[in-house]
Amino acid sequence: MTYTAPLREQMFVLETVADLPGIAALPGFEGATPDLVGAVLAESARLMAGEFAPLNSVGDKVGARAVDGVVTMPEGFRDAYASWIAGGWAGLNAAPAHGGQGLPFVLSCAVMEQLMSANMAFSLCMMLSAGAIEALQAHASPEQQRLYLEKLVSGEWTGTMNLTEPQAGSDVGALRTLAVPHADGSWRIKGQKIYITWGEHDLADNIIHLVLARTPDAPPGTKGISLFIVPKFLVNADGSLGARNDVRAIATEHKLGIHASPTCTMSFGDRDDCVGFMVGAEGGGMRAMFTMMNHARINVGLQGLAVAERAYQHALDYARTRVQSAKFGGGRAPVRIIEHADVRRMLMTMKANIEAARAITYLTAASVDRGHAGDAEAARLADLLTPVTKAFATDVGVEMTSLAVQVFGGMGYVEETGAAQHLRDARIAPIYEGTNGIQALDLVGRKLGQGRWQGLFADIRADLAGLPKGGDLGAMAPYLDDALAALQTATVWMSGNDGAALEDTAAAATPYLRMFALTVGGWLLIRQAAAASGQLAAAQGDPDFLRAKVATARFFAEQLLPAAPALLGPITRGALSLYAVPEEQLLAR
Amino acid sequence: MTYTAPLREQMFVLETVADLPGIAALPGFEGATPDLVGAVLAESARLMAGEFAPLNSVGDKVGARAVDGVVTMPEGFRDAYASWIAGGWAGLNAAPAHGGQGLPFVLSCAVMEQLMSANMAFSLCMMLSAGAIEALQAHASPEQQRLYLEKLVSGEWTGTMNLTEPQAGSDVGALRTLAVPHADGSWRIKGQKIYITWGEHDLADNIIHLVLARTPDAPPGTKGISLFIVPKFLVNADGSLGARNDVRAIATEHKLGIHASPTCTMSFGDRDDCVGFMVGAEGGGMRAMFTMMNHARINVGLQGLAVAERAYQHALDYARTRVQSAKFGGGRAPVRIIEHADVRRMLMTMKANIEAARAITYLTAASVDRGHAGDAEAARLADLLTPVTKAFATDVGVEMTSLAVQVFGGMGYVEETGAAQHLRDARIAPIYEGTNGIQALDLVGRKLGQGRWQGLFADIRADLAGLPKGGDLGAMAPYLDDALAALQTATVWMSGNDGAALEDTAAAATPYLRMFALTVGGWLLIRQAAAASGQLAAAQGDPDFLRAKVATARFFAEQLLPAAPALLGPITRGALSLYAVPEEQLLAR
Repeated sequence: MTYTAPLREQMFVLETVADLPGIAALPGFEGATPDLVGAVLAESARLMAGEFAPLNSVGDKVGARAVDGVVTMPEGFRDAYASWIAGGWAGLNAAPAHGGQGLPFVLSCAVMEQLMSANMAFSLCMMLSAGAIEALQAHASPEQQRLYLEKLVSGEWTGTMNLTEPQAGSDVGALRTLAVPHADGSWRIKGQKIYITWGEHDLADNIIHLVLARTPDAPPGTKGISLFIVPKFLVNADGSLGARNDVRAIATEHKLGIHASPTCTMSFGDRDDCVGFMVGAEGGGMRAMFTMMNHARINVGLQGLAVAERAYQHALDYARTRVQSAKFGGGRAPVRIIEHADVRRMLMTMKANIEAARAITYLTAASVDRGHAGDAEAARLADLLTPVTKAFATDVGVEMTSLAVQVFGGMGYVEETGAAQHLRDARIAPIYEGTNGIQALDLVGRKLGQGRWQGLFADIRADLAGLPKGGDLGAMAPYLDDALAALQTATVWMSGNDGAALEDTAAAATPYLRMFALTVGGWLLIRQAAAASGQLAAAQGDPDFLRAKVATARFFAEQLLPAAPALLGPITRGALSLYAVPEEQLLAR
Repeated sequence: MTYTAPLREQMFVLETVADLPGIAALPGFEGATPDLVGAVLAESARLMAGEFAPLNSVGDKVGARAVDGVVTMPEGFRDAYASWIAGGWAGLNAAPAHGGQGLPFVLSCAVMEQLMSANMAFSLCMMLSAGAIEALQAHASPEQQRLYLEKLVSGEWTGTMNLTEPQAGSDVGALRTLAVPHADGSWRIKGQKIYITWGEHDLADNIIHLVLARTPDAPPGTKGISLFIVPKFLVNADGSLGARNDVRAIATEHKLGIHASPTCTMSFGDRDDCVGFMVGAEGGGMRAMFTMMNHARINVGLQGLAVAERAYQHALDYARTRVQSAKFGGGRAPVRIIEHADVRRMLMTMKANIEAARAITYLTAASVDRGHAGDAEAARLADLLTPVTKAFATDVGVEMTSLAVQVFGGMGYVEETGAAQHLRDARIAPIYEGTNGIQALDLVGRKLGQGRWQGLFADIRADLAGLPKGGDLGAMAPYLDDALAALQTATVWMSGNDGAALEDTAAAATPYLRMFALTVGGWLLIRQAAAASGQLAAAQGDPDFLRAKVATARFFAEQLLPAAPALLGPITRGALSLYAVPEEQLLAR
């Protein structure tokens, strides 16, 4: 099954939700005109369909094979990666000073979405490299940038992010990897990291590991953590490769999915000779890591909707060709299953959820761009929406890929079909880059306190006030109105919690995030429907596509959005019922 | 990770929901006293923990291996199956006349639940055999019963059910396998069947295939279908094994899960010499198959809750030992993750959903028993609840096993942990034995029309009226009241649809089934809570267990039940928005 990038949809969201024209008006982004963006996306769509999507299945079946610390990627991966480099895709939104193309982050997200749909496991290599580029651009010294950035930006080298240790997962502050200063100003790193994505592979000449470690006598917790560059091969002053560094992949995980993404246990300093270079100030590791983690969270959200998009296309293709049973109450002639109402409901649920998740994600990414250009309100909006993007879009990823399996029926359960792979791949996204539970706590614990939600809710209210009374838009308005009212109430309730009542906030975090995401998703779909209606009235654009946008928004409003206000009760009931069954009684029944 | 049968919970549901004393008062079930039932369940719990649960992981990793039509099960399976036979478990609810123990179906369900928790893939062998026993008991001739039943009841032989063909999945009537009469009164079968569970294996001396096939000149559709016994080895008149029949497993599927369940493509009559024996009347195949399919649907529902129970126990064990991060707003000391509100919410969501699904399933099974004893109202209740049981409990299976993976975090994504297996195994249950979409159509298209819902709703209303105003029970009442009111409205709306509006019914079927299940599940948990409150007041039973039942019901009422009335809008919006996006626009974006 191939993949066709939803180009019109992507462009429409960029224009109506991400305000692409506004982004193109920001200093440095003057080149990002709709024409150029359209051309970039069309070009990357060809690359994805032609080279990356066909490798998705072999990547799953053969996977990354690890023998004695050497990881071999399946055939075809090297060529595809070479095309990635040749096209300059690795540096799409990196700074021109470092060889990048300096395009907006939101555009790189649209390209990444395509790559993730085409081949999620492969895309993690590029995603981690992009994170390393970002961290080094923001925090590395000019000399470090000269030595490492250019080849990361070109894609010749790849990057990794080394946080997790067995006792330090969500709790990064508990990490123990040690960095000891060396006479020459470098450091010696010692420790083990687990779950290191693309920690070892054979696609690039060098791998730049970014490693969080604790310096001697550093304070406990996150404040004692610093960030280090640990190259697989040391890099000489002239940029040529030197000795092999004392860092190795000592194991790879056998995972449920993303088999073509080597997940490594990395050992640093087995021979006490692992050379690292501190990035930024001592003790500034978490800050540096958060820069890159926030963008990574947006990218992981993208994965959720991207894999769901691929699964949707796959299921749709099957539903349009598989003939089985007559329609309910509709005679005896068997029909294609897409004509059965229940299958249609599954397909529309996928389409609407994916488009809601895409809209939220692009808005968040565009807010990052505007924030970088100095718009403080946009930066705070990006902060607010990042956990919503990550958690909602990845939950959508799991739920919609599972629905796609259901559309396939028995065929979906047979691995040969490829439908199950989407579900297996998607299942990691709610877990890594901060579990969705952590995202929900970030939303209620830190982001709400910044107050940016008030402006967001006001924007939604203003849009609501501008909707016409009749027609499709008028029919959608009450659903959004109900959702917003409930969200407002829940948010105010949440903000009033303090002291012991913080337990109530924590208890409500996950349903609250879902309510938040449904409301914002519904709003953005209705905003698109309003834009589509405007274009239809002005006889602009493709009327069939525009009418489909309106109809999808209405489906979301009528069928999916009512779940949002229904969460108000559960959210505000407090933590008591969560703990009312004592632990022993959870166990012994 | 081991499995401990939730014995107190099972007994409590049998007593308070299934009315075990009432069942034991039915003719033929006099032996099924609470003491005996408790002893049976305790004994089977030992067998499951000791022999079947430890094989779950090897079954997944090694799987059923097929070479040239010979299927070899992993080491240990043969011994465990021998224990199953030795304990007489295969004939638990088979008729004493055929060597069975004649115990109630609902008790065999409680045992099956344990087996399915312990080893879902393995349990399918026993489940299919039980189906074959049932079909032969109901429809086979005395001579056929003499030849085949006894050894199926003892477990020495196993049974299969052969319906599906590539073009005939949900639409059984489209099958093409042919049965031609032979001079000696037997038939010759020719055709291929796919997805045949345990179609071939090395645990038993013979396999009795029950095959749906079409006789020459039979009318098209389901009316032309007859049922045939096709033994792997022909059986001589004295019961000894004769020649190998012309039926073979020509392929096995590589599936997402249930790797220890060989899913075979069966070829009948490659050498034009596949001998079959008609069961019942010509053209009566579908009726016979439905007998066994209804019970199979209850059993598949059991699988959903059983695998969820196993995953719950697994996740709970992890959450009680894994230490990570301080509590939200609660200082700096890291705690076991079970103390985090979000993890607690996931565990309670699992517990409450599993217990709701168990209650619905046991009530349905008990209604089958009462129906067999001549209680027509109970038989219609079983009919009504069968699709609800199958679809809801299997959806719970997928959703809760996915939550269990989430509790494990990164560890959950690594196959070694075993958490992912539960999700992979559970994913088949919403698909086979009639997809959950088909179940929903069965509910709204056939079962509602039988009118039995009116009595059920009246029972719920009567229970509601009997709840005290205050306390936990009083606090739960409004949630059930809201859900029932919405369900009543939806049902009446549904019943009014006719002609073209049947499309609206079909469109609403899936959310309607979910609303129905949540309401009935909530009712049965509250009924248990009321019984527990009564026992607490009377100082009977284990107070900790009883209080936990009350608290779990309240959690369900407050946190999960509000989703039911929220579905009223989506249900009654009709089919229009499902089809508003034309097919071409689903595709080309």
